[in-house]
Amino acid sequence: MKVKRLVLDVLIPQDPSVLFFADKLSDMEKVDGVTIRVSEIDERTKSVEMTIEGEDLSIEDLICEIEDLGGSVHSIDSVSSGSRIV
Amino acid sequence: MKVKRLVLDVLIPQDPSVLFFADKLSDMEKVDGVTIRVSEIDERTKSVEMTIEGEDLSIEDLICEIEDLGGSVHSIDSVSSGSRIV
Amino acid sequence: MKVKRLVLDVLIPQDPSVLFFADKLSDMEKVDGVTIRVSEIDERTKSVEMTIEGEDLSIEDLICEIEDLGGSVHSIDSVSSGSRIV
Amino acid sequence: MKVKRLVLDVLIPQDPSVLFFADKLSDMEKVDGVTIRVSEIDERTKSVEMTIEGEDLSIEDLICEIEDLGGSVHSIDSVSSGSRIV
Amino acid sequence: MKVKRLVLDVLIPQDPSVLFFADKLSDMEKVDGVTIRVSEIDERTKSVEMTIEGEDLSIEDLICEIEDLGGSVHSIDSVSSGSRIV
Amino acid sequence: MKVKRLVLDVLIPQDPSVLFFADKLSDMEKVDGVTIRVSEIDERTKSVEMTIEGEDLSIEDLICEIEDLGGSVHSIDSVSSGSRIV
Amino acid sequence: MKVKRLVLDVLIPQDPSVLFFADKLSDMEKVDGVTIRVSEIDERTKSVEMTIEGEDLSIEDLICEIEDLGGSVHSIDSVSSGSRIV
Repeated sequence: MKVKRLVLDVLIPQDPSVLFFADKLSDMEKVDGVTIRVSEIDERTKSVEMTIEGEDLSIEDLICEIEDLGGSVHSIDSVSSGSRIV
Repeated sequence: MKVKRLVLDVLIPQDPSVLFFADKLSDMEKVDGVTIRVSEIDERTKSVEMTIEGEDLSIEDLICEIEDLGGSVHSIDSVSSGSRIV
Repeated sequence: MKVKRLVLDVLIPQDPSVLFFADKLSDMEKVDGVTIRVSEIDERTKSVEMTIEGEDLSIEDLICEIEDLGGSVHSIDSVSSGSRIV
Repeated sequence: MKVKRLVLDVLIPQDPSVLFFADKLSDMEKVDGVTIRVSEIDERTKSVEMTIEGEDLSIEDLICEIEDLGGSVHSIDSVSSGSRIV
Repeated sequence: MKVKRLVLDVLIPQDPSVLFFADKLSDMEKVDGVTIRVSEIDERTKSVEMTIEGEDLSIEDLICEIEDLGGSVHSIDSVSSGSRIV
Repeated sequence: MKVKRLVLDVLIPQDPSVLFFADKLSDMEKVDGVTIRVSEIDERTKSVEMTIEGEDLSIEDLICEIEDLGGSVHSIDSVSSGSRIV
Repeated sequence: MKVKRLVLDVLIPQDPSVLFFADKLSDMEKVDGVTIRVSEIDERTKSVEMTIEGEDLSIEDLICEIEDLGGSVHSIDSVSSGSRIV
């Protein structure tokens, strides 16, 4: 299987910023692009939707990286795999 | 007939993950791509919509695989067949 | 006249499945593609919308086939004919 | 003037069918395509929207044909004329 | 200035028909296309929206023609001018 | 900086007309196109939205021209600048 | 990482204008385009949404410039990074 796109519902702390998350995630191997949209800002945390596209994404590596940065993946909203995104 | 696209309403357990389902389904013969969207998360189960595209899909094999993985196909929401998707 | 597209509101039994209907209809002569969307599921029946495209569709043959399979065409929602779909 | 597209609000009897109307209208000279959408079904009549495209449509001929078939044009909802549809 | 598109809110009598208006307006010099959509039908009048495109439209000539035909331009809803429609 | 697009909320008198405004604005240097949409008509004034595109727009010149014609720029709703519109 | 697009929620004073902000931001290195949309106007301030695209945006430089001009970045609504915008 080749995971081509993931949409993750993630809770991140106020620090580091969404920029830092986007920076680190898009630097990962096989990641082509990352868009992080902030959906809710609370006192100490932010709810964000992360859309990640690539040719052969590793969810384990992505979750690992997100957690290393202090984020917490609440749920996988969508996953697309195969030879093309449908 | 050649089934080109299927949209299935499926109930899956918390484990294995949607990733695993996408992985296994997109690895199947004649499957070009799979997108699984999570529509509802309950304590022990998830309601997901699976969109599967390919050149000549076998619903039997797909249902078989889904059930082997612990999922339960509630309904076929849409099926497209023929020489082109209309 | 050349009927190029038909949208039919059809009531079908639980058995045979929508797959079987799509299979049989898309195998018919002059049919290019069929999409069946399930709009309502009752205990013994399903309300479905059938979109059928082709180069010169025969409504009589289509209705005949649908009825042979146990379905009942409630209404023709839309018909497109001519040298191009408008 | 060249009328290129007409949208008509028409009341037609249950018999002949919309197929027959589409058949006859798309067979007319200068008509490229016809789409008839059923918007309301009453006991004896159907309210339909007819979209007719062609290179130089004659509304008189179209109304004449519709009335010959037992239909009644309630109103012209839209007319497009000129060297291109705007 | 070159007026490229006009959208007019016009009140027209029941007679002549929208077809006649479209006919006359699209026959005018520099008019490429006209679409008249009927938005409201009253006992003796119709409220219509006229979209007129061309390379160098003359609003004076258009209003003149509309009034000659018995119509009354209530307002100019939109005007686009320049070397391209923005 | 090169201003490529401006959307202005402008109050204009009943006279001169929106046509005159579009005429004058699209005649200005570096203006490629102007669309004026009327959003509200009061007894003596009209609220209009002006969309102006060009390669290197001068807001000062545009406001100057609008005021010379009797209009009053209430606010700049949107401005796009740079080597491409984003 | 290459930040390709940023959407910022910014509070700016009445003076300087949005034009000035767009001017200064689109003049910055690596910025391809800027669109500023005004969402709310208060007595002394404006809430604006700034969309900034470029090949390798520096959020620090952008915030620095915005603050130098008297603006205050309330939040980063969206950030896209990687080799392509997803």
